Amino acid sequence: MSRDTDHPKEDDVLDLRASRTSLTSAEVEDLEDLALGEDYALNPDFVAMVVDAIDRGDAERLRELLAALHPADVADLMGFLSSDYRSEVVAHLDPEALAEILSELDTEIREDVLEHVPYATLAKALGEMDSDDAVDVVDDLEDDKRAQVLAAMPEIERTAIESSLAYEDETAGRLMQREVVWAPQFWTVGQTIDHFLKEADELPELFFDVYVVDPSHKPVGAVPVSHLLRTRRDAPLAQVMEAITEIPVQMDQEEVAYIFDKYHLISAPVVEPGGRLVGQITVDDIVGVIQDESEEDILALAGVSDAGRDAGVLGIVRSRLPWLILNLLTATIAVSVIAAFQNEIAKLVTLAILMPIVAGVGGNAGTQTLAVAVRALASRELNASNATRIFLREICVGMIDGAVLGSVMSVAVFLWFHDLRLSLTVGLALIVNVSIAAVVGTLVPLTLDRLGRDPAVSSSVFVTFATDSMGFLSFLGLAAVILL
Amino acid sequence: MSRDTDHPKEDDVLDLRASRTSLTSAEVEDLEDLALGEDYALNPDFVAMVVDAIDRGDAERLRELLAALHPADVADLMGFLSSDYRSEVVAHLDPEALAEILSELDTEIREDVLEHVPYATLAKALGEMDSDDAVDVVDDLEDDKRAQVLAAMPEIERTAIESSLAYEDETAGRLMQREVVWAPQFWTVGQTIDHFLKEADELPELFFDVYVVDPSHKPVGAVPVSHLLRTRRDAPLAQVMEAITEIPVQMDQEEVAYIFDKYHLISAPVVEPGGRLVGQITVDDIVGVIQDESEEDILALAGVSDAGRDAGVLGIVRSRLPWLILNLLTATIAVSVIAAFQNEIAKLVTLAILMPIVAGVGGNAGTQTLAVAVRALASRELNASNATRIFLREICVGMIDGAVLGSVMSVAVFLWFHDLRLSLTVGLALIVNVSIAAVVGTLVPLTLDRLGRDPAVSSSVFVTFATDSMGFLSFLGLAAVILL
Repeated sequence: MSRDTDHPKEDDVLDLRASRTSLTSAEVEDLEDLALGEDYALNPDFVAMVVDAIDRGDAERLRELLAALHPADVADLMGFLSSDYRSEVVAHLDPEALAEILSELDTEIREDVLEHVPYATLAKALGEMDSDDAVDVVDDLEDDKRAQVLAAMPEIERTAIESSLAYEDETAGRLMQREVVWAPQFWTVGQTIDHFLKEADELPELFFDVYVVDPSHKPVGAVPVSHLLRTRRDAPLAQVMEAITEIPVQMDQEEVAYIFDKYHLISAPVVEPGGRLVGQITVDDIVGVIQDESEEDILALAGVSDAGRDAGVLGIVRSRLPWLILNLLTATIAVSVIAAFQNEIAKLVTLAILMPIVAGVGGNAGTQTLAVAVRALASRELNASNATRIFLREICVGMIDGAVLGSVMSVAVFLWFHDLRLSLTVGLALIVNVSIAAVVGTLVPLTLDRLGRDPAVSSSVFVTFATDSMGFLSFLGLAAVILL
Repeated sequence: MSRDTDHPKEDDVLDLRASRTSLTSAEVEDLEDLALGEDYALNPDFVAMVVDAIDRGDAERLRELLAALHPADVADLMGFLSSDYRSEVVAHLDPEALAEILSELDTEIREDVLEHVPYATLAKALGEMDSDDAVDVVDDLEDDKRAQVLAAMPEIERTAIESSLAYEDETAGRLMQREVVWAPQFWTVGQTIDHFLKEADELPELFFDVYVVDPSHKPVGAVPVSHLLRTRRDAPLAQVMEAITEIPVQMDQEEVAYIFDKYHLISAPVVEPGGRLVGQITVDDIVGVIQDESEEDILALAGVSDAGRDAGVLGIVRSRLPWLILNLLTATIAVSVIAAFQNEIAKLVTLAILMPIVAGVGGNAGTQTLAVAVRALASRELNASNATRIFLREICVGMIDGAVLGSVMSVAVFLWFHDLRLSLTVGLALIVNVSIAAVVGTLVPLTLDRLGRDPAVSSSVFVTFATDSMGFLSFLGLAAVILL
């Protein structure tokens, strides 16, 4: 089982796994071993067993199987089940277990699952979650259901969720949890420890830092919990505390992830514009953000928006068709270059055979440069202070690559068609187009970034368009001059 | 300043920032504000100030500037400096500061920096690091220098590093730090806390879990530090401990990252084949792994290997040319399809104009499918239990996309060339090629994955080759039948 800062009530997980099953602990062990494959991914056979248990309406068996899974794996299981089977699974989870699982689910799947959960159960489950997870879930509810669920929640939790919802999506405010451990700056280590023992029930299940606050509740430092354990009781917090990196509520989550990664933060205090401590972000939330952001980049570079794991055929079509139609349009414009050289092609059909090579290889060279630039921008390795140097470096690379590819290809073409001028034309065209690819592949993302746009999105369309049309133009143009 | 599990001696950073500068704390504040841009990336002006100070040989000023930076930012600074300037910076860092910075540097830059560091200083710096960071650094040294540095280190640290080096690269054994806090299972919470207070100097600067071990030093559970603070002193560890996810030393780091992400782990015990506790991995190391792995995927999909931030022109050429040459080869094979239809093209040059569109759009559709599949495989959302379903879903998507694109294009072609049969040919060819793209874009990564290969690497070459040749074949083949 895991340690999990997201889910305060670890022991409930233990309950879920132990309780409501007639199996001996040995049998439970076996099921747990069976549940996950060697790569820690859910075992297909286990999924089949769950489906089978549901088909046979064997509730007892279903509970045993679910009890053998960590909440994260139950969430994973949901991804492999159809909506009807999911509702069966949900029906056999108590609020605590549901709380654990809901916050693990992908948005689309969660929306589906939530339709099978009665208000009361959901309200209770939300109460079990950290505020950041509860907000995610409530955010997925349709307005009417959201109203009813919130109404069914205790005052304090409701207002906490409502005020978090007020922050924009993908900001620190949304990412943070309001459960945060703080102590006044005039306390000693001993006072703090005693206070924790007395107020144990008030504390979050898991925390890594005690934030030291001044009288206006502004964080002035942090004391890692492990430091409390190793420091003399009479030491004042103000003396043992470390400097903090404050995260403003409105900061973009990608920014937050960059800071966590750069400074190896485990947790950081989130502050209101006024500077008051309103919550904290922990590194395990950041791991998710980093996964999402890099996934966004991969998909964006491939010209596809994320339809979500659970999307149907039409959802996927919607996520891809727009880019393909745009590509169809740019391709059509690119080939109009060819139309201008119809006579040359009619005279020498070989041109039609070779031009896709020039365009294609240029396209690949452009994609390479683009991917590297996008990556460097994301990791802040590329910025104003070295943009020019990197740009010039890329052009050199492009010209060298082009020269090598050009020479290789002209030899090949000569051996193929025994036409010296043709092989010369191909060689030159490749040098030109691969160099252009380097220029475009660097300039496009740099420009988008300078304009405050995501350099990964739509760059490839520009680049392919440039390398296609320039590929045709350079090759056919040179051919017109050199050959005909 | 940050909290940083990688660097035990936080206070040394404070020293670095405070010491050896004649500035008032206010002036230091100003420099720190100036150092970082709004996006927390290093400020180009600040880099310029450093360069200027070095040019003027103003050691005093250089120290002030460096003192204003967090080690992570000094490491970042190195990335913007040439080798000569780096050696100047290194000359002004004491071993503690150097230790902090070395473990932050990218490999190539570190190799360069290490050449400017005398053995003794380096040995001392390594002593300051966590074992995992020290191993990274030693791993970068050439054999002769490595031998001399290790010789200059204290016995215990040397053997620790040497045994870690015995583990394969990119495994848990390399990722783990040997500094780990454990307690025998028969201890109580109180005994543990008292022990920590007594042995404070022996403890790592920062830790999140106390691993509970049995007499054979096998971990049987973990107690989060925050739980120690909130639990009655007389409670036995065995009673308050939580279940653990053990990481085998030989596990691949990508696997480890998956487990940390899935179960939101903050730290996990690393065990030898025998089961003995040998170290721990903390989530902040995992953040780096996740960044690296996703970066690898982005670059691999674009057909480029990472040349490293500090690579020279030739290094970059080496990282890209092989893929481009491979692409040149496949493109040449693909266009040989066109060669087979020379006569058709000679009869109707329009074919030469339109065929790149069919091939190009097919290529994009294939890239979309590929990126989605690679992503799903990486996140284990796609596996044996749903591969067939996903595959069929992709084919449906491909056919629908193809149908839409085909209809749009045939209308466009009819308006352009007023040739009904030509527009029909283009439409059908697009449907065929986009459907093929869906099949190939899914099958290629799935097959590579089944073969235990990285599905991101070399997939795009296969896919582009397929969509190019099939694009030409379907369009020209249909043309031969329908038109001529």
